[in-house]
Amino acid sequence: MSIFTRAILEINLNNLLDNYNVLKDIAKDAVPAAVVKDDAYGLGAEAVVDLLYNRAEARYFFVAHAIEALPIAQKYKDAKIFVLQGIGEDSAEIFQNNPQLVPVIGSWDMLQYWKGIRKVGRKAAIQVETGLNRLGFRMNELDKLSSDDKDEFELVMSHLACGDEKDHFMNEHQLKNFENIKRKYFPKLTASLAASDGVFLGQSFQQNMVRLGAAMYGINTAPYRPNQMKNVVTVKAPVLQISDLAKGEFVGYSATYRAAGKRKIAIVSIGYGDGVPRSLSNVGKVFFKTAKGVEEARIIGRVSMDNIICDVTNVSQIAIGDWAILAGDFYTLDDMARDAGTISYEIMSRLGKNRRFERKYLE
Amino acid sequence: MSIFTRAILEINLNNLLDNYNVLKDIAKDAVPAAVVKDDAYGLGAEAVVDLLYNRAEARYFFVAHAIEALPIAQKYKDAKIFVLQGIGEDSAEIFQNNPQLVPVIGSWDMLQYWKGIRKVGRKAAIQVETGLNRLGFRMNELDKLSSDDKDEFELVMSHLACGDEKDHFMNEHQLKNFENIKRKYFPKLTASLAASDGVFLGQSFQQNMVRLGAAMYGINTAPYRPNQMKNVVTVKAPVLQISDLAKGEFVGYSATYRAAGKRKIAIVSIGYGDGVPRSLSNVGKVFFKTAKGVEEARIIGRVSMDNIICDVTNVSQIAIGDWAILAGDFYTLDDMARDAGTISYEIMSRLGKNRRFERKYLE
Repeated sequence: MSIFTRAILEINLNNLLDNYNVLKDIAKDAVPAAVVKDDAYGLGAEAVVDLLYNRAEARYFFVAHAIEALPIAQKYKDAKIFVLQGIGEDSAEIFQNNPQLVPVIGSWDMLQYWKGIRKVGRKAAIQVETGLNRLGFRMNELDKLSSDDKDEFELVMSHLACGDEKDHFMNEHQLKNFENIKRKYFPKLTASLAASDGVFLGQSFQQNMVRLGAAMYGINTAPYRPNQMKNVVTVKAPVLQISDLAKGEFVGYSATYRAAGKRKIAIVSIGYGDGVPRSLSNVGKVFFKTAKGVEEARIIGRVSMDNIICDVTNVSQIAIGDWAILAGDFYTLDDMARDAGTISYEIMSRLGKNRRFERKYLE
Repeated sequence: MSIFTRAILEINLNNLLDNYNVLKDIAKDAVPAAVVKDDAYGLGAEAVVDLLYNRAEARYFFVAHAIEALPIAQKYKDAKIFVLQGIGEDSAEIFQNNPQLVPVIGSWDMLQYWKGIRKVGRKAAIQVETGLNRLGFRMNELDKLSSDDKDEFELVMSHLACGDEKDHFMNEHQLKNFENIKRKYFPKLTASLAASDGVFLGQSFQQNMVRLGAAMYGINTAPYRPNQMKNVVTVKAPVLQISDLAKGEFVGYSATYRAAGKRKIAIVSIGYGDGVPRSLSNVGKVFFKTAKGVEEARIIGRVSMDNIICDVTNVSQIAIGDWAILAGDFYTLDDMARDAGTISYEIMSRLGKNRRFERKYLE
């Protein structure tokens, strides 16, 4: 008998690398840039950047915050890192000391601030609003730009609202807006419109630079067809205890599950403190690899901070120390997200922030 | 004009200390122990342990995993740390090298493992099952214990399923089970049944040791009456951009919000990557402190990884660089959790894992 207490997060770097290369091929006329914000969607920006820099010659990266760019800039002197949230008083010093960082300027006011603190010759990127109504210059702000202002920029970019819905009217609408803005204000700039989802919408969306994020991490950003990406994330947690429920017994906080008959349950050492969405209470699934193949068990009762409880009555073979698989290639984070009522991006970001997991990078 | 890009998590250690002391007073005949698992519910175990050890003479702590106990054991040699997930092959060495760690043994099998590796004289705690049906010895396992086995333990504990519902039948049911088990198997052991919620259920539930967690962090664990605890967590994020929406315009991913008329929106630099539940999309609220007092604005469209978008049409005064307050004393994490369809424990745990936030401890 083996007993384990800690969950394991496996990150398959080979698959991640393959995904990056496939996406690069699909957008072969565009420069690829790797999106590693939010600690590479939680999977570890350091490991992902090392991989892509050394094994795929990646030199362009996108992060959200300047503090996320700093370790990349310090390690790789010929990398260029675009910072999507731009610049403010709380990040000015990082930008001033690290010429590889490029702020993505999203508003007229931010541009004024940048011009006040940047050294001559430093370039920025400009985000323009085309329909998402998030960060980005609106038309009235673009009209105010002088030709000197326009010289501040090396890249013009925007972001799609509905790129994961192939036929959504917003895609063409945003593309048209983007083309108009480019033509009118930035005819010579490098242009970027597509993140992972936009890559699959064709060459017109790929423009000059594509920002490869979610799909690289294995998320299906083109859910209107089967996932072309390989799975990157596996989450598993050990069975700490197995016991029997009598008919009528309750399980978990607030007694939300009651056994309609005799059940066998497994207590698994992972919970929402580890990033398992609490919305999987009484809904989520785990899987066990047995002699019969992959067998499914249901999460019963509330997900708690450190544990979930699973109904393993119908699992043919189970013992303490067995591994409950919460996500893997046969039930991906996309599948888990569907059950949890959210998107895999959110779950990945949470799981990856875990410091109690044992984290294994497969290479 | 000021521009900021990073959100701020403020943790009021004075209030946390006050809460601990209030709880200690309520359970004045029991020994207090501080629950600092999951990095002190995300708020930073190091800061919380330092505070409670030095300013409240706390010497007993509970964590979930041995790796969480290690830094406490190394820093405070007279602290005793109970490890709720118990011991396994992946944590045995930590237990062997750190005599201050006490595994909470939850099953017969785990007891055998512990006996095989522990040095003579080391004591454990035993978790017994009284109705939660999570980790813990069941009756058939208790019956197998020899008197030598029983000598392995210094503490017997269990955990309430419905302690936050004052009149739930499970409370008396579990208390009765616990008393029976104590009487029959462990008449002389120190006993612990109550976590924060159980403390409010009266002396019979408080037993010899209370485990103070959620309430100490400001969560209302007695929601059948107004919160007696002080607020500990404030979350705020800067407005990065303000712009206008025309009638018919869409906002955010999947275009889930459409303006029924002209609106003014603020883009705020925080998202689910920072721990804001994505389930607050089109539902959540933020607040601005203006000359008129605290004014409310609604999150519109989807919460994205790095940003939320708020309808500030009716906020009397707003500028770039203003702080949108997502949680604070007038709208606590409990309130946010209600809007997000979950519990504040989950949100706190997520927010606290953020590494992009500026984290401020107020003392």
